[in-house]
Amino acid sequence: MKSQQKKQFIAALKSKVSTKVDVVELANQLLSGNTIALSKAITLVESNKREDSLLAAELMRIILPHSGKSKRIGISGVPGAGKSTFIEALGMSLIKSNLKVAVLAVDPSSEVGKGSILGDKTRMEQLSANANAFIRPSAASGTLGGVARKTREAIYCCEAAGYDVVLIETVGVGQSETAVNSMVDFFLLIAISGAGDELQGIKRGIMEMVHAVVINKADGENIHKAKLAKTEVKRALHFYPQFASGWSPETLVCSALENTGIGEVWTLIETYFEKFDGYIHQNRKSQAKWWLKESIEEEVIAQFYLNKAIEKELPIIEKDVVEMKLSVSEALLKLMTLNK
Amino acid sequence: MKSQQKKQFIAALKSKVSTKVDVVELANQLLSGNTIALSKAITLVESNKREDSLLAAELMRIILPHSGKSKRIGISGVPGAGKSTFIEALGMSLIKSNLKVAVLAVDPSSEVGKGSILGDKTRMEQLSANANAFIRPSAASGTLGGVARKTREAIYCCEAAGYDVVLIETVGVGQSETAVNSMVDFFLLIAISGAGDELQGIKRGIMEMVHAVVINKADGENIHKAKLAKTEVKRALHFYPQFASGWSPETLVCSALENTGIGEVWTLIETYFEKFDGYIHQNRKSQAKWWLKESIEEEVIAQFYLNKAIEKELPIIEKDVVEMKLSVSEALLKLMTLNK
Repeated sequence: MKSQQKKQFIAALKSKVSTKVDVVELANQLLSGNTIALSKAITLVESNKREDSLLAAELMRIILPHSGKSKRIGISGVPGAGKSTFIEALGMSLIKSNLKVAVLAVDPSSEVGKGSILGDKTRMEQLSANANAFIRPSAASGTLGGVARKTREAIYCCEAAGYDVVLIETVGVGQSETAVNSMVDFFLLIAISGAGDELQGIKRGIMEMVHAVVINKADGENIHKAKLAKTEVKRALHFYPQFASGWSPETLVCSALENTGIGEVWTLIETYFEKFDGYIHQNRKSQAKWWLKESIEEEVIAQFYLNKAIEKELPIIEKDVVEMKLSVSEALLKLMTLNK
Repeated sequence: MKSQQKKQFIAALKSKVSTKVDVVELANQLLSGNTIALSKAITLVESNKREDSLLAAELMRIILPHSGKSKRIGISGVPGAGKSTFIEALGMSLIKSNLKVAVLAVDPSSEVGKGSILGDKTRMEQLSANANAFIRPSAASGTLGGVARKTREAIYCCEAAGYDVVLIETVGVGQSETAVNSMVDFFLLIAISGAGDELQGIKRGIMEMVHAVVINKADGENIHKAKLAKTEVKRALHFYPQFASGWSPETLVCSALENTGIGEVWTLIETYFEKFDGYIHQNRKSQAKWWLKESIEEEVIAQFYLNKAIEKELPIIEKDVVEMKLSVSEALLKLMTLNK
């Protein structure tokens, strides 16, 4: 941006700065690792208000150069697989290695007040009480694209605040995994052993993007079953195409409850980061490009529907199309004329 | 449309009418069942030229009230399953029952001149030589959405020209099936018996939309295998959710080569049309609504990228986003300002 343009942009922003949020001060606090500031920053990023989005843009401008340094790990799994227990165990083990851990959630289906997958912090008792952990229940609402964009910027906030590992939990419904996959470096699927049908309930599309499957609850009488499940999953993974990076997905067993096998999972993740450092760097660039495209298209469509003339005429045109009085091609010609 | 608006619209269209195409004359010929006119009409509908799209819109306006009377059948299957032979056998049997049959193809990957799935008419020798059959190789190029919209309008053309059954062949790559599924009443999958792995190569998403699976090539030594395959497929289909209409997908065997089992397939399709007449009517309305939405969004996005200011600035903004100099949110704010 040219200097003059920049001045104008900042002046425009400043005129909008509410007395409640001083973005520069907020950014400074966030950069010093203050978790209250981090919380506030994410709230700002997640806000759907126009005024807040200008402030959020300014905040991102300040913190962006300080982001990008974490390992971004996506964690998915069917309900009951023990995702929270796993995150608690992995998180605590990372903290013991002097790492700072942030946990975010992508859950576009959740609505504020209706609770969300990470809403119940008591499921991560130790982690939520630890000063080196930051847990952020999913509060953003809106379209998947919008929620995901905000989650991406929440990741940048966590990174700028000094978190070394960002774990992004997702609900396991398919769509949100695709979104999460395009913002993380490594994607982990938590599964449990069942009646020979370990992958039931896991959408095929998800299997294609996981870097590793961890069979959880390998404890007590379940150990043998978990090992069998591992063999089954390994065989299933064999049928999926190899990653562009050359990585072949791995299968591990663990018990988050008894804290066994967690170290092995982390070792595997570290191996990936060491081995594919250059690939990860490139992949993040592709992800950024993809997100820009997705966001642009979502926004362009949203603005089209907000156009007053369109808002007025669309129901009439739609009715005519449904009743076969108007072809889609002609409807398009009309709508595009209205949109000019 | 108000009378005055309509006059202006038609005047605008007339000023654009090239000396080559008289749309009213073309429509009249098409409505009388002239196949050359039908071919020309589809070419017009498939054209990507702006002038042609105005003519196509006018053509659609005239023929739309005469469309909607055919049975629209989607036909998919892996390469080698014998789709063309099946269509030839089914088509000829329909013609013997005094029905007129049109065959279209959806193949967004094909490019003009590069050939297409129906390009080789010799694969349907009898059908292509019959006066009551109309075979249209896929010639449309462009985005899937665009190709699909044009195929939809080609269906209307065939219907207006008096075809009783429109068969829409697709390539079996997943995406195009979704498009075809949203323009047909009944979706048929052609499979063949294999080594106990009948559904290999068929994407899960496709299985979820088929109304019936036909195991083809049940002839000679293959009859027993085909029957086993039928049992397997039946079992597999059991795991898929029921249709909104209440229909449960059926499995049949046939030999398109020996012309056995084809009548049973058609009887099944007729049963569906009798039983779900009201549902099909409603479903076509939902399909029209869906297509309008898809077409709008594709067009809006296309126009955004054609905006000169966007065309100029986007590469710079994209570079900044990729290099983490600019957040996606801020990039969006900038781009939307440019788009005003």
